[in-house]
Amino acid sequence: MELKTIAFDVMGSDNGLIPAVDAAIKLLGEQKDLKIIFVGDEATIKEALLKKKYNPEQVDFLNTSQVIEMTDGIMEIRRKKDSSMVRALELVNEGKADAITTGGATAPFIAGSFFILKQMEGVERPAFMPVIPTLIKDKITLLLDVGANLECDPQDIEKFAIMANAYSKAVRGIETPKIALLNIGEEKSKGLEVHKEAYKLLEANSELDFIGNIESRYITSGIADIIVADGLTGNIALKAIEGMAKNLLTEIKSAITKTFGRKLAALRLKGAFKEVAAKFDYKNHAGAILLGVNKIAFKSHGSSDVKSFYATLKMTYNAIKNDVLNRVKTALKVK
Amino acid sequence: MELKTIAFDVMGSDNGLIPAVDAAIKLLGEQKDLKIIFVGDEATIKEALLKKKYNPEQVDFLNTSQVIEMTDGIMEIRRKKDSSMVRALELVNEGKADAITTGGATAPFIAGSFFILKQMEGVERPAFMPVIPTLIKDKITLLLDVGANLECDPQDIEKFAIMANAYSKAVRGIETPKIALLNIGEEKSKGLEVHKEAYKLLEANSELDFIGNIESRYITSGIADIIVADGLTGNIALKAIEGMAKNLLTEIKSAITKTFGRKLAALRLKGAFKEVAAKFDYKNHAGAILLGVNKIAFKSHGSSDVKSFYATLKMTYNAIKNDVLNRVKTALKVK
Repeated sequence: MELKTIAFDVMGSDNGLIPAVDAAIKLLGEQKDLKIIFVGDEATIKEALLKKKYNPEQVDFLNTSQVIEMTDGIMEIRRKKDSSMVRALELVNEGKADAITTGGATAPFIAGSFFILKQMEGVERPAFMPVIPTLIKDKITLLLDVGANLECDPQDIEKFAIMANAYSKAVRGIETPKIALLNIGEEKSKGLEVHKEAYKLLEANSELDFIGNIESRYITSGIADIIVADGLTGNIALKAIEGMAKNLLTEIKSAITKTFGRKLAALRLKGAFKEVAAKFDYKNHAGAILLGVNKIAFKSHGSSDVKSFYATLKMTYNAIKNDVLNRVKTALKVK
Repeated sequence: MELKTIAFDVMGSDNGLIPAVDAAIKLLGEQKDLKIIFVGDEATIKEALLKKKYNPEQVDFLNTSQVIEMTDGIMEIRRKKDSSMVRALELVNEGKADAITTGGATAPFIAGSFFILKQMEGVERPAFMPVIPTLIKDKITLLLDVGANLECDPQDIEKFAIMANAYSKAVRGIETPKIALLNIGEEKSKGLEVHKEAYKLLEANSELDFIGNIESRYITSGIADIIVADGLTGNIALKAIEGMAKNLLTEIKSAITKTFGRKLAALRLKGAFKEVAAKFDYKNHAGAILLGVNKIAFKSHGSSDVKSFYATLKMTYNAIKNDVLNRVKTALKVK
């Protein structure tokens, strides 16, 4: 049996490598055709693995001496040649692994994937695509690009749609993903020139189920399976949503604990608040893929816990299993 | 005593004119130097005023036959010459009123103010500036521009800051408003060319307390008194925040009423949820001013109730009383 191999950069995330290792062990137990190469400080990783049960044939190690820190800029990718992130990317590039998963810093991850994995043929601008929770039960929306590129041309945005469409079909099993364009209004005539032109391209592309413009207020409403955006507005919208969710949950917490009576009642609603927080607290989210580079590259949130690392690893595994790369490549050629 | 006069367009908002009239009567009772000219269908307005107590010297009417509807585009401003919005703007332009307040459609309001009131000397692009609630008690943040212009140059953004700075000093009594620039990251080097150049201008302007870039996730954190933005990202961020607040409150409502036990507990937290909703539900918000036109022009939310109309009328009154126009004009000349 050929094993699907993930190069797992376990360094550089906020909570240390323990949650990363725990998540990996869990997924390894479930997927017998999965192999994980732990990339990082081997001694510490092995210590974290000491009392764990796993099949040693599913595990490998690559010892590295450096770490890309959360505060590191993109140039550290060039400087820290023995960092776990760079080494993991190289493993993938050399074909020793099928995909990388990391919980490290976003900008170096995107830059490193550009430098080392290179763009897919026909793609000028790869796009970073996180998963957005929505009001509708079990429905998520993919949003891209959220900042890998600040300036896009209409053709880039169309390619974001083509790639995310292929991804959704392959990994998420959605037959005809609904695709919307992030804009300041619903009318076709809205937005900058880039948005108007992208609208036309998306509308004319018969491979895509383009449903028109979407305003940022409806991103979490579950209207679209995929929302494409220029990287600037995508980034601004994503962070606005994240920040508002966090601040609103903080505000509610403070309001429901203001008096003793409220505290008592709030205790009985703990489960309800946990459900909502689990859905809209962005720390609990699964990973984001960088679409349009030559290999599968996933990033988990910098503050990932076991649950979020597990979710990202599973997304990575599913992407390998469903041959996302070739599905995306084929879709780009059809155009 | 010279009366401060507001031309109040009471037509075209979602909830009819009753809440508008009620709000006006309330403010008229409090401010004896205020006069309100009710612009709209005079018979209906007078009917709504029938049992109200007010000083008739503080009230006047301008009967109009047309209404700018919520779905109307900006061209209706040219076509509906006898609409309440156009007539109210004309009253202000002719000096028969000091300011306009409307709860009508945003795009026609902005376009109408441009056409009829014209830009202030030195201002190419007026900016629409709503009030944003923040996590910090009683602290609000002004955000501009949120969509009056999609493309701005760095000089426009600096002028947004100068105008909002003068406004905050005059109306809000803040001695040294903290001003931030909406961007995709905090570092000076972030963003498009327009953001980098605007950063330099803001930093170099000794009249402004510029605190640097702010990410959209911190808009509601209460860090800045004023956040300046190009109209595109300002619009995307504002709507993202509004939508997330609305959807998150919906999600919480559904979670806390899922079981009978939860419903019982939630009843005891009704007050707490009302407090949070009042703060972050954008329907409850006060008005937005269009800064940079030759007169004072305020818009209340399209779904305004008595409370929000009252808040907007009071903001308008305060803007007249504190001579905002001349304060802003002077500030623009200093630069």
